[in-house]
Amino acid sequence: MTLKGFSVPLTPQGRSALATLPPWHYSSDCIAIEYWADPGAIAALLPPGVAPDQKSAGRAFFWFLDWQFTASNDELTDPARYQYREAFALVEAVFEGKPVNYCPYIFVDNDAAMARGWAQGFPKKLGSIYQTRTFSAPSLAAAPLAKGSRFGASVAAHGERLATARIQLEEKVADPAKVFNRPTTMRRYFPQLAAERQSKPPVDELTMSLTDNLAIVDVWAGAAELRIPEVPGEDMHLIAPLRVGRGYRLGMAYSVTDLRILKNYAGQ
Amino acid sequence: MTLKGFSVPLTPQGRSALATLPPWHYSSDCIAIEYWADPGAIAALLPPGVAPDQKSAGRAFFWFLDWQFTASNDELTDPARYQYREAFALVEAVFEGKPVNYCPYIFVDNDAAMARGWAQGFPKKLGSIYQTRTFSAPSLAAAPLAKGSRFGASVAAHGERLATARIQLEEKVADPAKVFNRPTTMRRYFPQLAAERQSKPPVDELTMSLTDNLAIVDVWAGAAELRIPEVPGEDMHLIAPLRVGRGYRLGMAYSVTDLRILKNYAGQ
Amino acid sequence: MTLKGFSVPLTPQGRSALATLPPWHYSSDCIAIEYWADPGAIAALLPPGVAPDQKSAGRAFFWFLDWQFTASNDELTDPARYQYREAFALVEAVFEGKPVNYCPYIFVDNDAAMARGWAQGFPKKLGSIYQTRTFSAPSLAAAPLAKGSRFGASVAAHGERLATARIQLEEKVADPAKVFNRPTTMRRYFPQLAAERQSKPPVDELTMSLTDNLAIVDVWAGAAELRIPEVPGEDMHLIAPLRVGRGYRLGMAYSVTDLRILKNYAGQ
Amino acid sequence: MTLKGFSVPLTPQGRSALATLPPWHYSSDCIAIEYWADPGAIAALLPPGVAPDQKSAGRAFFWFLDWQFTASNDELTDPARYQYREAFALVEAVFEGKPVNYCPYIFVDNDAAMARGWAQGFPKKLGSIYQTRTFSAPSLAAAPLAKGSRFGASVAAHGERLATARIQLEEKVADPAKVFNRPTTMRRYFPQLAAERQSKPPVDELTMSLTDNLAIVDVWAGAAELRIPEVPGEDMHLIAPLRVGRGYRLGMAYSVTDLRILKNYAGQ
Repeated sequence: MTLKGFSVPLTPQGRSALATLPPWHYSSDCIAIEYWADPGAIAALLPPGVAPDQKSAGRAFFWFLDWQFTASNDELTDPARYQYREAFALVEAVFEGKPVNYCPYIFVDNDAAMARGWAQGFPKKLGSIYQTRTFSAPSLAAAPLAKGSRFGASVAAHGERLATARIQLEEKVADPAKVFNRPTTMRRYFPQLAAERQSKPPVDELTMSLTDNLAIVDVWAGAAELRIPEVPGEDMHLIAPLRVGRGYRLGMAYSVTDLRILKNYAGQ
Repeated sequence: MTLKGFSVPLTPQGRSALATLPPWHYSSDCIAIEYWADPGAIAALLPPGVAPDQKSAGRAFFWFLDWQFTASNDELTDPARYQYREAFALVEAVFEGKPVNYCPYIFVDNDAAMARGWAQGFPKKLGSIYQTRTFSAPSLAAAPLAKGSRFGASVAAHGERLATARIQLEEKVADPAKVFNRPTTMRRYFPQLAAERQSKPPVDELTMSLTDNLAIVDVWAGAAELRIPEVPGEDMHLIAPLRVGRGYRLGMAYSVTDLRILKNYAGQ
Repeated sequence: MTLKGFSVPLTPQGRSALATLPPWHYSSDCIAIEYWADPGAIAALLPPGVAPDQKSAGRAFFWFLDWQFTASNDELTDPARYQYREAFALVEAVFEGKPVNYCPYIFVDNDAAMARGWAQGFPKKLGSIYQTRTFSAPSLAAAPLAKGSRFGASVAAHGERLATARIQLEEKVADPAKVFNRPTTMRRYFPQLAAERQSKPPVDELTMSLTDNLAIVDVWAGAAELRIPEVPGEDMHLIAPLRVGRGYRLGMAYSVTDLRILKNYAGQ
Repeated sequence: MTLKGFSVPLTPQGRSALATLPPWHYSSDCIAIEYWADPGAIAALLPPGVAPDQKSAGRAFFWFLDWQFTASNDELTDPARYQYREAFALVEAVFEGKPVNYCPYIFVDNDAAMARGWAQGFPKKLGSIYQTRTFSAPSLAAAPLAKGSRFGASVAAHGERLATARIQLEEKVADPAKVFNRPTTMRRYFPQLAAERQSKPPVDELTMSLTDNLAIVDVWAGAAELRIPEVPGEDMHLIAPLRVGRGYRLGMAYSVTDLRILKNYAGQ
């Protein structure tokens, strides 16, 4: 009998697998904070062949996302499994002369999202992530998409606060493509535990996220705050903000069916 | 120095209190399932003076709510503390000849919500609650408010699934007041542990929830499923659905500043 | 039909209640850190009639406990419901000339423990609590009860670290009663939401914990560290350590069937 | 600058990595339930080259483990990160004529444990796992290691109970090696998302767990119950117990520095 599943655990029925074969469809609400970090700290995180973007001068974005996922079996109607929250940093870089983002840190609160993420190269760890939501019923608690609305967001892991952000909406963004226009690159990596090969990971690739049917909607910009404090057991504070730029609140959707492999480090 | 806080812990600064003094402002997305349970099982849960509604014949609603809360200090920008999820049953009853709802079971994932709830008479326990959300970025994962969209919801506690629901939207509801029009009554109860008075709770009241500036918006109705299975350590399955009616998806907001005490059982 | 339960929710069967009638039996592993806080900050937390202990000069203990609970129905074999973790501060004070401890802050990860705690006067909030455990299978990971063993402990809430401790065992304590010998007092408090009575809580008492069959075993002492950082939304850092004393690791068990009411503030 | 870490995320400092390079040291308390499942359902889960053990006739063990972990930096004093709980099934099989266990399902509540597990071939998913603990302070809640003591254990994921067990201790086991003596084999698997190679996983190996300094202590046996109910989104109930044997409670410790690769399926 054939075993089924994109990821483990593989079973004859294929229901237990953390991830089934693509397509994977996503829709989200997002808060993103533009900021500038120490360019040297960013450079130190980049894999071979990815260079700091000199024009960016340390520019990065810190994202918080409330995600809903579905594959082909109405997964979105099982929100206890398929709804999740995510937070990550994207630092600006250059690959083969082209501007890209690179993802050095990412946190998520769901194991299926972790499995799909690792398969792409997102170095996901578990965290608790929250962002203020917009509700349609009018109230002081509703946070409408309107000038003056305030949103907060945070990510924590193991009881330590890793990042906290707040934004206040000022204006709608007419052309989001001017803000969010770099493809995202990652390092896809899977280690080897067999003693004599621990320094030779079988999977070590530079990858680029491919997003079908990308939609970015309802983009608002405004003032922003962002803190990434130092906590034990994490290195992320080394790319903490030296200066904070604009904050954004938007909706984003896409589908994933493929991944581009830019470089294979494993054979080197 | 005066100690501050609506609930414990009381401190001079008043920041640690689970709940500060009202007003409390709420906005939510809701899934509600109409169903019919065993009228005898409902009657057995009602406190003195609250009678089964013979016309209801066991009618009840099971609700799932994603809440955002704020008091007067921008609490909504701290979503890790002030966003929460809730699930509860409302059974139809009669008090002094008037139709009411009574809340025998309620689950929530946040301690401040538990403290505010107990103060009103909601018998809150901790649970994990999820509902499919509507996202604005178009995708198979977006669950738009539109005919044919499917939503799911669930509540679990201590690793046991207590209720699972699904609805499929069919039509907008023009007049929600025809569906949701009963005030909610609860039993406000706080026990005494001192040995000689364990049978004399100091607080034992029938209360009615007072909701200022109630807004019910974007109400859709459709087909529904609901399961409330028997699990160890819970009695809620005794009001499991014998028959399921319509499912609803809506937004709801209100503020709380007061509570009506209908009866005082403690002196009896 | 009579409704059963020590706490809500009350049901005919009594299985849903967060707490059943006593006796309640507890056994635990504990880490306790002796420290000294600002005496003025301690004094500011004490309820009427409880005075600072001048001899203590701000002495307090911060405790971390891994609890197992059972009532009369084999509850300990349902560890998903009845095992829980707790952290609290006890500050030294005087009541009617006698040395006591008073509990201003306490965190727990279980709703039944919260319900039983509130009934006694412990101002419990939800938190994530961990302590290094002793395991019997020998390993560098086992943390045996032996000279040189190191233990850590922490409490967090809403993704903020509220306290972190570490101890290193040095010696067995022959007479624990010299260290742990004050009864614990609390403020039992339940508010009123009805608008005209929000300043008149129906339950506002000074209470004393009564522990039957108290056993304190396997007590070790050693060097200790303790941090209570300032975080948004909490006042506990105001009693952060100015100086840290000894650290203790012990086992403790007792049963609860009663509560002593020392003062009733509600009628005042 | 060299990036450090056994697993992602790789950083110059190496603190953020989910797993650092071995050695990894573990100590645990364990509950294990012997049972017999449908031999056909077990056979259907085995990877190529691993055959059902005809003598076992469907014999399996379901394990619950409370783990403490440390690497070389006192990790055990940070229990919020390095303490975790696990549950898994081991089914009896034969590889190259030798009796082995194979692990088709495993749940854990910690991301570092997930990363180390995937590197070995354990198909870990997230779950909530609990087992009754033994405490040294005498109490009805203490569950001593003694005849008649009762222990429970459970694993849940996404609010669905996946397995529940109970045992009652009857006698100490003199020679644990007669019970626990098969090496554990796993399928180490990492998928490829690039569209044209989704059926060619880069890592697909049969592996065997290598445990240095294995210690199994304080083994008790007794009567046992085990339930593995069918829940949506999981296939594990297909190896639910047809018959339950003995229950065991024990301590276990070992270190991991290496992994044996038995077969490489990836090149086939």
